[in-house]
Amino acid sequence: MAGISLSKARVMIRKALEKGREAGMKPLSAVVLDAGGHVIAFERSDGAAPGRFAIAQGKAYGCVMLGMAGKAQMARAEAQAYFMAAVNGVYGGQVVPVPGGVLVRDKKGAILGAVGVTGDTSDNDAIAALAGIEAAGLVGEA
Amino acid sequence: MAGISLSKARVMIRKALEKGREAGMKPLSAVVLDAGGHVIAFERSDGAAPGRFAIAQGKAYGCVMLGMAGKAQMARAEAQAYFMAAVNGVYGGQVVPVPGGVLVRDKKGAILGAVGVTGDTSDNDAIAALAGIEAAGLVGEA
Amino acid sequence: MAGISLSKARVMIRKALEKGREAGMKPLSAVVLDAGGHVIAFERSDGAAPGRFAIAQGKAYGCVMLGMAGKAQMARAEAQAYFMAAVNGVYGGQVVPVPGGVLVRDKKGAILGAVGVTGDTSDNDAIAALAGIEAAGLVGEA
Amino acid sequence: MAGISLSKARVMIRKALEKGREAGMKPLSAVVLDAGGHVIAFERSDGAAPGRFAIAQGKAYGCVMLGMAGKAQMARAEAQAYFMAAVNGVYGGQVVPVPGGVLVRDKKGAILGAVGVTGDTSDNDAIAALAGIEAAGLVGEA
Repeated sequence: MAGISLSKARVMIRKALEKGREAGMKPLSAVVLDAGGHVIAFERSDGAAPGRFAIAQGKAYGCVMLGMAGKAQMARAEAQAYFMAAVNGVYGGQVVPVPGGVLVRDKKGAILGAVGVTGDTSDNDAIAALAGIEAAGLVGEA
Repeated sequence: MAGISLSKARVMIRKALEKGREAGMKPLSAVVLDAGGHVIAFERSDGAAPGRFAIAQGKAYGCVMLGMAGKAQMARAEAQAYFMAAVNGVYGGQVVPVPGGVLVRDKKGAILGAVGVTGDTSDNDAIAALAGIEAAGLVGEA
Repeated sequence: MAGISLSKARVMIRKALEKGREAGMKPLSAVVLDAGGHVIAFERSDGAAPGRFAIAQGKAYGCVMLGMAGKAQMARAEAQAYFMAAVNGVYGGQVVPVPGGVLVRDKKGAILGAVGVTGDTSDNDAIAALAGIEAAGLVGEA
Repeated sequence: MAGISLSKARVMIRKALEKGREAGMKPLSAVVLDAGGHVIAFERSDGAAPGRFAIAQGKAYGCVMLGMAGKAQMARAEAQAYFMAAVNGVYGGQVVPVPGGVLVRDKKGAILGAVGVTGDTSDNDAIAALAGIEAAGLVGEA
Protein backbone atom coordinates (compact mmCIF):
# COMPACT_ATOMS: atom_id res chain seq x y z
CA MET A 1 0.00 0.00 0.00
CA ALA A 2 1.67 3.19 -1.20
CA GLY A 3 1.40 5.90 1.40
CA ILE A 4 3.74 8.70 2.47
CA SER A 5 7.22 7.32 3.14
CA LEU A 6 9.28 8.63 6.05
CA SER A 7 11.71 10.10 3.58
CA LYS A 8 8.91 12.11 1.87
CA ALA A 9 7.63 13.19 5.28
CA ARG A 10 11.10 14.48 6.18
CA VAL A 11 11.22 16.54 3.01
CA MET A 12 7.79 18.04 3.71
CA ILE A 13 8.70 19.01 7.26
CA ARG A 14 12.16 20.40 6.44
CA LYS A 15 10.86 22.50 3.57
CA ALA A 16 7.91 23.79 5.58
CA LEU A 17 10.18 24.92 8.43
CA GLU A 18 12.67 26.36 5.95
CA LYS A 19 9.93 28.29 4.15
CA GLY A 20 8.92 29.82 7.48
CA ARG A 21 12.49 30.92 8.28
CA GLU A 22 13.04 32.39 4.80
CA ALA A 23 9.77 34.32 4.95
CA GLY A 24 10.52 35.68 8.40
CA MET A 25 7.70 33.79 10.11
CA LYS A 26 7.82 32.88 13.80
CA PRO A 27 9.38 29.48 14.59
CA LEU A 28 7.17 26.81 13.01
CA SER A 29 6.31 23.25 13.94
CA ALA A 30 5.09 20.68 11.43
CA VAL A 31 3.56 17.21 11.54
CA VAL A 32 2.85 14.68 8.79
CA LEU A 33 -0.01 12.21 9.30
CA ASP A 34 -0.80 9.14 7.20
CA ALA A 35 -4.17 8.38 5.58
CA GLY A 36 -5.42 6.93 8.87
CA GLY A 37 -4.54 10.05 10.87
CA HIS A 38 -1.46 8.52 12.53
CA VAL A 39 1.81 10.41 13.02
CA ILE A 40 4.67 9.66 10.63
CA ALA A 41 6.97 12.53 11.66
CA PHE A 42 7.03 15.81 13.57
CA GLU A 43 9.51 18.58 14.26
CA ARG A 44 9.29 21.67 16.45
CA SER A 45 11.64 24.57 15.66
CA ASP A 46 13.86 25.96 18.39
CA GLY A 47 12.05 28.83 20.07
CA ALA A 48 8.53 27.52 19.42
CA ALA A 49 6.13 27.13 22.37
CA PRO A 50 6.17 23.69 24.02
CA GLY A 51 2.58 22.76 23.16
CA ARG A 52 2.93 22.96 19.39
CA PHE A 53 2.71 19.22 18.70
CA ALA A 54 -0.95 19.05 19.72
CA ILE A 55 -1.93 22.06 17.61
CA ALA A 56 -0.11 20.77 14.53
CA GLN A 57 -1.63 17.33 14.96
CA GLY A 58 -5.11 18.76 15.51
CA LYS A 59 -4.92 20.75 12.29
CA ALA A 60 -3.87 17.74 10.26
CA TYR A 61 -6.12 15.24 12.04
CA GLY A 62 -9.34 16.98 11.07
CA CYS A 63 -8.20 17.04 7.44
CA VAL A 64 -7.75 13.29 7.34
CA MET A 65 -10.74 12.26 9.41
CA LEU A 66 -13.22 14.49 7.61
CA GLY A 67 -11.49 14.47 4.20
CA MET A 68 -11.72 18.27 4.39
CA ALA A 69 -8.85 20.82 4.33
CA GLY A 70 -8.29 23.48 7.00
CA LYS A 71 -9.89 26.36 5.12
CA ALA A 72 -13.07 24.36 4.46
CA GLN A 73 -13.15 23.28 8.12
CA MET A 74 -12.85 26.90 9.22
CA ALA A 75 -15.68 27.94 6.90
CA ARG A 76 -17.88 25.22 8.36
CA ALA A 77 -16.92 26.19 11.92
CA GLU A 78 -17.79 29.81 11.23
CA ALA A 79 -21.12 28.92 9.61
CA GLN A 80 -22.12 26.28 12.14
CA ALA A 81 -20.02 26.45 15.30
CA TYR A 82 -21.98 23.77 17.15
CA PHE A 83 -21.30 21.30 14.31
CA MET A 84 -17.52 21.61 14.69
CA ALA A 85 -17.90 21.41 18.47
CA ALA A 86 -19.84 18.18 18.01
CA VAL A 87 -17.26 16.84 15.57
CA ASN A 88 -14.65 17.42 18.23
CA GLY A 89 -16.78 15.48 20.66
CA VAL A 90 -16.83 12.37 18.52
CA TYR A 91 -13.11 12.67 17.68
CA GLY A 92 -11.97 13.10 21.28
CA GLY A 93 -11.28 16.82 21.01
CA GLN A 94 -8.46 16.25 18.52
CA VAL A 95 -9.58 18.59 15.71
CA VAL A 96 -8.27 22.17 15.26
CA PRO A 97 -10.36 23.51 12.33
CA VAL A 98 -8.22 26.32 10.89
CA PRO A 99 -5.77 26.88 8.01
CA GLY A 100 -2.41 25.21 8.42
CA GLY A 101 -4.08 21.84 8.14
CA VAL A 102 -3.45 20.78 4.55
CA LEU A 103 -4.56 17.61 2.75
CA VAL A 104 -1.85 15.69 0.91
CA ARG A 105 -2.92 14.04 -2.35
CA ASP A 106 -1.09 12.09 -5.00
CA LYS A 107 -1.15 13.21 -8.64
CA LYS A 108 -4.43 11.32 -9.20
CA GLY A 109 -6.14 13.04 -6.28
CA ALA A 110 -6.16 10.22 -3.74
CA ILE A 111 -5.70 11.41 -0.14
CA LEU A 112 -2.41 10.12 1.29
CA GLY A 113 -2.53 12.01 4.57
CA ALA A 114 -2.18 15.56 5.83
CA VAL A 115 0.37 18.11 7.00
CA GLY A 116 -0.26 20.38 9.98
CA VAL A 117 1.81 23.52 10.50
CA THR A 118 1.54 25.95 13.42
CA GLY A 119 3.49 28.88 14.84
CA ASP A 120 2.66 31.94 12.75
CA THR A 121 -0.72 33.19 11.45
CA SER A 122 -2.95 30.40 10.20
CA ASP A 123 -2.63 31.65 6.63
CA ASN A 124 1.18 31.73 6.81
CA ASP A 125 1.16 28.26 8.38
CA ALA A 126 -0.76 27.04 5.33
CA ILE A 127 1.74 28.66 2.96
CA ALA A 128 4.61 26.86 4.67
CA ALA A 129 2.76 23.54 4.60
CA LEU A 130 2.06 23.87 0.88
CA ALA A 131 5.74 24.61 0.20
CA GLY A 132 6.71 21.43 1.98
CA ILE A 133 4.18 19.30 0.15
CA GLU A 134 5.21 20.70 -3.21
CA ALA A 135 8.89 20.02 -2.48
CA ALA A 136 7.99 16.36 -1.95
CA GLY A 137 6.35 16.15 -5.38
CA LEU A 138 2.85 15.82 -3.93
CA VAL A 139 -0.28 17.95 -4.16
CA GLY A 140 -1.53 20.05 -1.24
CA GLU A 141 -5.11 21.27 -0.62
CA ALA A 142 -5.15 24.00 2.03
CA MET B 1 -40.40 -4.98 22.12
CA ALA B 2 -39.67 -6.17 18.63
CA GLY B 3 -36.66 -4.16 17.61
CA ILE B 4 -34.75 -3.75 14.36
CA SER B 5 -33.44 -7.09 13.11
CA LEU B 6 -30.02 -7.31 11.51
CA SER B 7 -31.69 -8.14 8.24
CA LYS B 8 -33.80 -4.95 8.36
CA ALA B 9 -30.69 -2.97 9.30
CA ARG B 10 -28.90 -4.35 6.24
CA VAL B 11 -31.75 -3.26 4.00
CA MET B 12 -31.71 0.25 5.47
CA ILE B 13 -27.97 0.65 5.00
CA ARG B 14 -27.85 -0.82 1.50
CA LYS B 15 -30.71 1.30 0.28
CA ALA B 16 -29.32 4.45 1.87
CA LEU B 17 -25.93 3.96 0.19
CA GLU B 18 -27.63 3.04 -3.09
CA LYS B 19 -29.80 6.16 -2.95
CA GLY B 20 -26.68 8.24 -2.56
CA ARG B 21 -24.98 6.65 -5.56
CA GLU B 22 -28.07 7.01 -7.76
CA ALA B 23 -28.48 10.67 -6.81
CA GLY B 24 -24.82 11.45 -7.49
CA MET B 25 -24.00 12.20 -3.84
CA LYS B 26 -20.49 11.83 -2.42
CA PRO B 27 -19.70 8.37 -0.98
CA LEU B 28 -21.99 7.83 2.00
CA SER B 29 -21.63 5.96 5.27
CA ALA B 30 -24.59 4.72 7.30
CA VAL B 31 -25.17 3.31 10.76
CA VAL B 32 -28.24 1.74 12.38
CA LEU B 33 -28.65 2.00 16.14
CA ASP B 34 -31.18 0.15 18.29
CA ALA B 35 -33.59 1.73 20.78
CA GLY B 36 -30.82 1.81 23.40
CA GLY B 37 -28.44 3.71 21.12
CA HIS B 38 -26.22 0.66 20.42
CA VAL B 39 -24.80 -0.20 17.01
CA ILE B 40 -26.53 -2.93 15.00
CA ALA B 41 -24.74 -2.39 11.69
CA PHE B 42 -22.57 0.08 9.82
CA GLU B 43 -21.07 0.42 6.34
CA ARG B 44 -18.67 2.99 4.89
CA SER B 45 -18.62 3.37 1.10
CA ASP B 46 -15.32 3.08 -0.74
CA GLY B 47 -13.82 6.56 -1.09
CA ALA B 48 -15.41 8.01 2.06
CA ALA B 49 -13.13 9.69 4.63
CA PRO B 50 -11.88 7.32 7.35
CA GLY B 51 -13.59 9.06 10.26
CA ARG B 52 -17.15 8.61 9.03
CA PHE B 53 -18.23 6.02 11.60
CA ALA B 54 -18.03 8.52 14.45
CA ILE B 55 -20.05 11.16 12.60
CA ALA B 56 -22.75 8.70 11.51
CA GLN B 57 -23.01 7.30 15.03
CA GLY B 58 -23.14 10.78 16.56
CA LYS B 59 -26.04 11.78 14.32
CA ALA B 60 -28.05 8.68 15.18
CA TYR B 61 -27.11 8.63 18.87
CA GLY B 62 -28.62 12.02 19.61
CA CYS B 63 -31.86 10.92 17.93
CA VAL B 64 -32.23 7.91 20.19
CA MET B 65 -31.02 9.46 23.41
CA LEU B 66 -33.13 12.59 23.10
CA GLY B 67 -36.03 11.04 21.15
CA MET B 68 -35.55 13.95 18.74
CA ALA B 69 -34.70 13.77 15.03
CA GLY B 70 -31.71 15.54 13.44
CA LYS B 71 -33.60 18.54 12.11
CA ALA B 72 -35.18 19.22 15.49
CA GLN B 73 -31.77 18.85 17.16
CA MET B 74 -30.26 21.34 14.73
CA ALA B 75 -33.06 23.83 15.38
CA ARG B 76 -32.43 23.51 19.10
CA ALA B 77 -28.66 23.88 18.61
CA GLU B 78 -29.18 27.05 16.58
CA ALA B 79 -31.60 28.52 19.07
CA GLN B 80 -29.70 27.50 22.18
CA ALA B 81 -26.14 26.39 21.44
CA TYR B 82 -25.22 26.02 25.12
CA PHE B 83 -28.04 23.51 25.58
CA MET B 84 -26.61 21.20 22.90
CA ALA B 85 -23.15 21.70 24.36
CA ALA B 86 -24.49 20.63 27.73
CA VAL B 87 -26.28 17.66 26.18
CA ASN B 88 -22.95 16.60 24.76
CA GLY B 89 -21.47 16.93 28.23
CA VAL B 90 -23.85 14.43 29.73
CA TYR B 91 -23.65 12.07 26.73
CA GLY B 92 -19.86 11.99 26.58
CA GLY B 93 -19.57 14.19 23.51
CA GLN B 94 -21.27 11.60 21.30
CA VAL B 95 -24.07 13.73 19.81
CA VAL B 96 -23.82 15.39 16.36
CA PRO B 97 -27.02 17.47 16.15
CA VAL B 98 -27.61 17.89 12.40
CA PRO B 99 -29.78 16.34 9.66
CA GLY B 100 -28.77 12.86 8.58
CA GLY B 101 -29.76 11.57 12.00
CA VAL B 102 -33.20 10.04 11.47
CA LEU B 103 -35.50 8.37 14.01
CA VAL B 104 -36.86 4.94 13.04
CA ARG B 105 -40.44 4.21 14.14
CA ASP B 106 -42.81 1.30 13.60
CA LYS B 107 -46.24 1.86 12.02
CA LYS B 108 -47.72 2.71 15.43
CA GLY B 109 -45.11 5.37 16.08
CA ALA B 110 -42.93 3.57 18.63
CA ILE B 111 -39.23 4.44 18.36
CA LEU B 112 -37.20 1.38 17.35
CA GLY B 113 -33.85 3.13 16.89
CA ALA B 114 -32.19 5.54 14.49
CA VAL B 115 -30.22 5.73 11.28
CA GLY B 116 -27.25 8.07 10.83
CA VAL B 117 -25.96 8.94 7.37
CA THR B 118 -22.96 11.14 6.55
CA GLY B 119 -20.84 12.05 3.52
CA ASP B 120 -22.77 14.63 1.50
CA THR B 121 -24.66 17.74 2.66
CA SER B 122 -26.66 17.16 5.81
CA ASP B 123 -29.93 17.49 3.89
CA ASN B 124 -28.87 14.93 1.30
CA ASP B 125 -27.69 12.61 4.05
CA ALA B 126 -31.21 12.75 5.51
CA ILE B 127 -32.80 11.97 2.12
CA ALA B 128 -30.63 8.86 1.80
CA ALA B 129 -31.46 7.75 5.34
CA LEU B 130 -35.20 8.12 4.72
CA ALA B 131 -34.92 6.07 1.54
CA GLY B 132 -33.27 3.27 3.49
CA ILE B 133 -35.86 3.30 6.26
CA GLU B 134 -38.75 3.29 3.80
CA ALA B 135 -37.25 0.35 1.92
CA ALA B 136 -37.31 -1.62 5.17
CA GLY B 137 -41.01 -0.96 5.64
CA LEU B 138 -40.47 1.35 8.60
CA VAL B 139 -41.19 5.02 9.22
CA GLY B 140 -38.45 7.66 9.33
CA GLU B 141 -38.55 11.05 11.03
CA ALA B 142 -35.73 13.29 9.80
CA MET C 1 -4.14 2.94 -2.31
CA ALA C 2 -5.43 -0.64 -2.26
CA GLY C 3 -7.09 -1.41 1.07
CA ILE C 4 -10.09 -3.53 2.04
CA SER C 5 -13.10 -2.62 -0.11
CA LEU C 6 -16.57 -2.48 1.41
CA SER C 7 -17.52 -5.46 -0.70
CA LYS C 8 -14.65 -7.54 0.76
CA ALA C 9 -15.59 -6.35 4.25
CA ARG C 10 -19.17 -7.54 3.70
CA VAL C 11 -17.94 -10.97 2.67
CA MET C 12 -15.72 -11.23 5.76
CA ILE C 13 -18.54 -10.27 8.11
CA ARG C 14 -21.19 -12.47 6.49
CA LYS C 15 -18.96 -15.49 6.45
CA ALA C 16 -17.80 -14.96 10.02
CA LEU C 17 -21.38 -14.74 11.30
CA GLU C 18 -22.39 -17.72 9.11
CA LYS C 19 -19.50 -19.79 10.46
CA GLY C 20 -20.72 -19.06 13.97
CA ARG C 21 -24.27 -20.17 13.21
CA GLU C 22 -23.14 -23.36 11.45
CA ALA C 23 -20.85 -24.29 14.33
CA GLY C 24 -23.55 -23.67 16.93
CA MET C 25 -21.77 -20.71 18.49
CA LYS C 26 -23.66 -17.99 20.35
CA PRO C 27 -24.78 -15.02 18.19
CA LEU C 28 -21.65 -13.30 16.89
CA SER C 29 -20.82 -9.71 16.03
CA ALA C 30 -18.02 -8.75 13.65
CA VAL C 31 -16.21 -5.58 12.66
CA VAL C 32 -13.72 -4.85 9.87
CA LEU C 33 -11.19 -2.05 10.39
CA ASP C 34 -8.90 -0.54 7.77
CA ALA C 35 -5.11 -0.20 8.08
CA GLY C 36 -5.57 2.99 10.13
CA GLY C 37 -7.90 1.37 12.64
CA HIS C 38 -11.07 2.98 11.27
CA VAL C 39 -14.37 1.12 10.88
CA ILE C 40 -15.35 -0.06 7.39
CA ALA C 41 -18.29 -2.26 8.39
CA PHE C 42 -19.93 -3.92 11.38
CA GLU C 43 -22.82 -6.28 12.02
CA ARG C 44 -24.34 -7.59 15.24
CA SER C 45 -26.37 -10.80 15.04
CA ASP C 46 -29.90 -10.85 16.42
CA GLY C 47 -29.79 -12.00 20.02
CA ALA C 48 -26.29 -10.65 20.75
CA ALA C 49 -25.79 -8.33 23.74
CA PRO C 50 -26.11 -4.61 22.92
CA GLY C 51 -22.52 -3.67 23.75
CA ARG C 52 -20.84 -5.96 21.23
CA PHE C 53 -19.64 -3.22 18.89
CA ALA C 54 -17.13 -1.88 21.38
CA ILE C 55 -15.71 -5.33 22.15
CA ALA C 56 -15.36 -6.25 18.49
CA GLN C 57 -13.74 -2.93 17.71
CA GLY C 58 -11.39 -3.19 20.68
CA LYS C 59 -10.18 -6.61 19.57
CA ALA C 60 -9.46 -5.42 16.04
CA TYR C 61 -8.10 -2.00 17.05
CA GLY C 62 -5.22 -3.39 19.06
CA CYS C 63 -4.24 -5.62 16.13
CA VAL C 64 -3.92 -2.66 13.79
CA MET C 65 -2.35 -0.18 16.17
CA LEU C 66 0.27 -2.57 17.51
CA GLY C 67 0.64 -4.70 14.36
CA MET C 68 0.07 -7.68 16.67
CA ALA C 69 -2.71 -10.30 16.48
CA GLY C 70 -5.06 -11.13 19.37
CA LYS C 71 -3.22 -14.24 20.55
CA ALA C 72 0.10 -12.39 20.73
CA GLN C 73 -1.58 -9.53 22.56
CA MET C 74 -3.04 -11.95 25.09
CA ALA C 75 0.35 -13.58 25.64
CA ARG C 76 1.87 -10.15 26.29
CA ALA C 77 -0.98 -9.19 28.62
CA GLU C 78 -0.51 -12.41 30.59
CA ALA C 79 3.26 -11.97 30.82
CA GLN C 80 3.20 -8.26 31.57
CA ALA C 81 -0.26 -7.06 32.60
CA TYR C 82 0.85 -3.52 33.38
CA PHE C 83 2.23 -3.12 29.86
CA MET C 84 -1.15 -3.84 28.27
CA ALA C 85 -2.81 -1.56 30.83
CA ALA C 86 -0.39 1.19 29.81
CA VAL C 87 -1.01 0.53 26.11
CA ASN C 88 -4.70 1.03 26.79
CA GLY C 89 -3.87 4.30 28.45
CA VAL C 90 -2.16 5.72 25.41
CA TYR C 91 -4.85 4.37 23.06
CA GLY C 92 -7.77 5.77 25.02
CA GLY C 93 -8.86 2.46 26.49
CA GLN C 94 -9.77 1.07 23.07
CA VAL C 95 -7.73 -2.17 23.10
CA VAL C 96 -9.20 -5.59 24.04
CA PRO C 97 -6.16 -7.91 23.95
CA VAL C 98 -7.67 -11.37 23.39
CA PRO C 99 -8.27 -13.81 20.52
CA GLY C 100 -10.99 -12.84 18.11
CA GLY C 101 -8.88 -9.90 16.99
CA VAL C 102 -7.31 -11.08 13.74
CA LEU C 103 -4.89 -9.24 11.45
CA VAL C 104 -5.82 -9.15 7.76
CA ARG C 105 -2.93 -9.38 5.31
CA ASP C 106 -2.71 -9.51 1.56
CA LYS C 107 -0.91 -12.40 -0.18
CA LYS C 108 2.42 -10.58 0.17
CA GLY C 109 1.99 -10.12 3.91
CA ALA C 110 1.15 -6.41 4.05
CA ILE C 111 -1.34 -5.52 6.80
CA LEU C 112 -4.59 -4.25 5.29
CA GLY C 113 -6.56 -4.02 8.52
CA ALA C 114 -8.14 -6.31 11.07
CA VAL C 115 -11.31 -8.22 11.88
CA GLY C 116 -12.77 -8.36 15.38
CA VAL C 117 -15.31 -11.02 16.33
CA THR C 118 -17.05 -11.38 19.67
CA GLY C 119 -19.92 -13.38 21.16
CA ASP C 120 -18.66 -16.88 21.89
CA THR C 121 -15.39 -18.04 23.51
CA SER C 122 -12.38 -16.03 22.37
CA ASP C 123 -10.98 -19.04 20.54
CA ASN C 124 -14.25 -19.65 18.69
CA ASP C 125 -14.46 -15.96 17.85
CA ALA C 126 -11.04 -16.27 16.21
CA ILE C 127 -12.13 -19.32 14.21
CA ALA C 128 -15.11 -17.41 12.84
CA ALA C 129 -12.97 -14.40 11.98
CA LEU C 130 -10.47 -16.56 10.11
CA ALA C 131 -13.29 -18.19 8.11
CA GLY C 132 -14.49 -14.78 7.04
CA ILE C 133 -11.05 -13.57 6.02
CA GLU C 134 -10.35 -16.72 4.04
CA ALA C 135 -13.68 -16.41 2.22
CA ALA C 136 -12.58 -12.97 1.04
CA GLY C 137 -9.37 -14.36 -0.42
CA LEU C 138 -7.18 -12.70 2.19
CA VAL C 139 -4.84 -14.02 4.87
CA GLY C 140 -5.69 -13.94 8.56
CA GLU C 141 -3.28 -13.99 11.51
CA ALA C 142 -5.11 -14.80 14.74
CA MET D 1 18.60 25.93 30.91
CA ALA D 2 20.03 24.96 27.55
CA GLY D 3 17.70 22.22 26.39
CA ILE D 4 17.76 19.81 23.47
CA SER D 5 17.89 21.67 20.15
CA LEU D 6 15.94 20.39 17.17
CA SER D 7 19.22 19.60 15.47
CA LYS D 8 20.33 17.40 18.39
CA ALA D 9 16.90 15.74 18.42
CA ARG D 10 17.28 14.92 14.74
CA VAL D 11 20.64 13.29 15.37
CA MET D 12 19.22 11.20 18.20
CA ILE D 13 16.29 9.98 16.14
CA ARG D 14 18.30 9.26 12.99
CA LYS D 15 20.95 7.34 14.85
CA ALA D 16 18.40 5.36 16.86
CA LEU D 17 16.56 4.28 13.70
CA GLU D 18 19.88 3.56 11.97
CA LYS D 19 21.06 1.43 14.89
CA GLY D 20 17.87 -0.60 14.61
CA ARG D 21 18.34 -1.21 10.89
CA GLU D 22 22.00 -2.17 11.30
CA ALA D 23 21.22 -4.60 14.10
CA GLY D 24 18.39 -6.22 12.14
CA MET D 25 15.66 -5.03 14.51
CA LYS D 26 12.06 -4.55 13.37
CA PRO D 27 11.23 -1.06 12.02
CA LEU D 28 11.65 1.40 14.90
CA SER D 29 9.95 4.65 15.83
CA ALA D 30 11.56 7.26 18.06
CA VAL D 31 10.45 10.41 19.86
CA VAL D 32 12.43 13.10 21.69
CA LEU D 33 10.72 15.01 24.51
CA ASP D 34 12.02 18.14 26.24
CA ALA D 35 12.43 18.61 29.99
CA GLY D 36 8.73 19.48 30.28
CA GLY D 37 7.63 16.28 28.56
CA HIS D 38 6.67 18.00 25.30
CA VAL D 39 7.45 16.63 21.85
CA ILE D 40 10.43 18.09 19.97
CA ALA D 41 10.60 15.54 17.15
CA PHE D 42 9.34 12.11 16.12
CA GLU D 43 9.88 9.70 13.24
CA ARG D 44 8.22 6.37 12.40
CA SER D 45 10.12 4.01 10.11
CA ASP D 46 8.40 2.68 7.00
CA GLY D 47 6.75 -0.63 7.86
CA ALA D 48 6.14 0.15 11.53
CA ALA D 49 2.60 -0.23 12.92
CA PRO D 50 0.53 2.97 12.75
CA GLY D 51 0.10 3.40 16.50
CA ARG D 52 3.79 3.72 17.33
CA PHE D 53 3.76 7.43 18.18
CA ALA D 54 1.67 6.88 21.30
CA ILE D 55 3.87 4.06 22.58
CA ALA D 56 7.11 5.97 22.00
CA GLN D 57 5.71 9.06 23.66
CA GLY D 58 4.40 7.05 26.60
CA LYS D 59 7.81 5.53 27.22
CA ALA D 60 9.58 8.88 27.18
CA TYR D 61 6.85 10.77 29.04
CA GLY D 62 7.12 8.63 32.15
CA CYS D 63 10.90 9.19 32.19
CA VAL D 64 10.53 12.95 32.24
CA MET D 65 7.55 13.22 34.54
CA LEU D 66 8.92 10.83 37.15
CA GLY D 67 12.63 11.55 36.58
CA MET D 68 12.99 7.79 36.32
CA ALA D 69 14.28 5.76 33.34
CA GLY D 70 12.33 2.94 31.68
CA LYS D 71 14.07 0.07 33.45
CA ALA D 72 13.46 1.61 36.86
CA GLN D 73 9.83 2.24 35.94
CA MET D 74 9.43 -1.40 34.89
CA ALA D 75 10.96 -2.60 38.16
CA ARG D 76 8.53 -0.43 40.08
CA ALA D 77 5.59 -1.68 37.96
CA GLU D 78 6.55 -5.28 38.62
CA ALA D 79 6.99 -4.72 42.34
CA GLN D 80 3.94 -2.54 42.79
CA ALA D 81 1.56 -2.66 39.82
CA TYR D 82 -1.10 -0.51 41.52
CA PHE D 83 1.44 2.28 41.97
CA MET D 84 2.09 2.51 38.22
CA ALA D 85 -1.66 2.28 37.60
CA ALA D 86 -2.13 5.23 39.96
CA VAL D 87 0.71 7.14 38.29
CA ASN D 88 -1.14 6.67 35.02
CA GLY D 89 -4.25 8.02 36.65
CA VAL D 90 -2.61 11.30 37.57
CA TYR D 91 -0.78 11.59 34.23
CA GLY D 92 -3.85 10.92 32.07
CA GLY D 93 -2.84 7.39 31.10
CA GLN D 94 0.19 8.63 29.17
CA VAL D 95 2.94 6.55 30.82
CA VAL D 96 4.27 3.27 29.33
CA PRO D 97 6.67 1.98 32.01
CA VAL D 98 9.07 -0.27 30.11
CA PRO D 99 12.59 -0.11 28.63
CA GLY D 100 12.94 1.99 25.52
CA GLY D 101 12.16 5.07 27.56
CA VAL D 102 15.58 6.65 28.22
CA LEU D 103 16.44 9.79 30.18
CA VAL D 104 18.68 12.32 28.43
CA ARG D 105 21.20 14.13 30.63
CA ASP D 106 23.95 16.64 29.97
CA LYS D 107 27.53 15.94 31.03
CA LYS D 108 26.81 17.33 34.53
CA GLY D 109 23.85 15.05 35.00
CA ALA D 110 20.99 17.52 34.55
CA ILE D 111 17.93 16.02 32.88
CA LEU D 112 17.30 17.63 29.48
CA GLY D 113 14.46 15.39 28.35
CA ALA D 114 13.92 11.81 27.22
CA VAL D 115 13.94 9.56 24.18
CA GLY D 116 11.31 6.90 23.58
CA VAL D 117 11.92 4.08 21.10
CA THR D 118 9.48 1.30 20.16
CA GLY D 119 9.18 -1.45 17.57
CA ASP D 120 11.40 -4.33 18.65
CA THR D 121 11.82 -5.94 22.09
CA SER D 122 11.89 -3.41 24.91
CA ASP D 123 15.57 -4.16 25.56
CA ASN D 124 16.51 -3.65 21.92
CA ASP D 125 14.48 -0.45 21.84
CA ALA D 126 16.61 0.82 24.73
CA ILE D 127 19.85 -0.09 22.93
CA ALA D 128 18.78 1.92 19.91
CA ALA D 129 17.77 4.90 22.05
CA LEU D 130 21.13 4.89 23.82
CA ALA D 131 22.97 4.83 20.50
CA GLY D 132 21.06 7.90 19.37
CA ILE D 133 21.72 9.83 22.58
CA GLU D 134 25.42 9.00 22.49
CA ALA D 135 25.68 10.13 18.88
CA ALA D 136 24.35 13.52 19.96
CA GLY D 137 27.08 13.88 22.60
CA LEU D 138 24.66 13.48 25.49
CA VAL D 139 24.28 10.93 28.27
CA GLY D 140 21.50 8.35 28.33
CA GLU D 141 20.08 6.49 31.31
CA ALA D 142 17.98 3.51 30.22
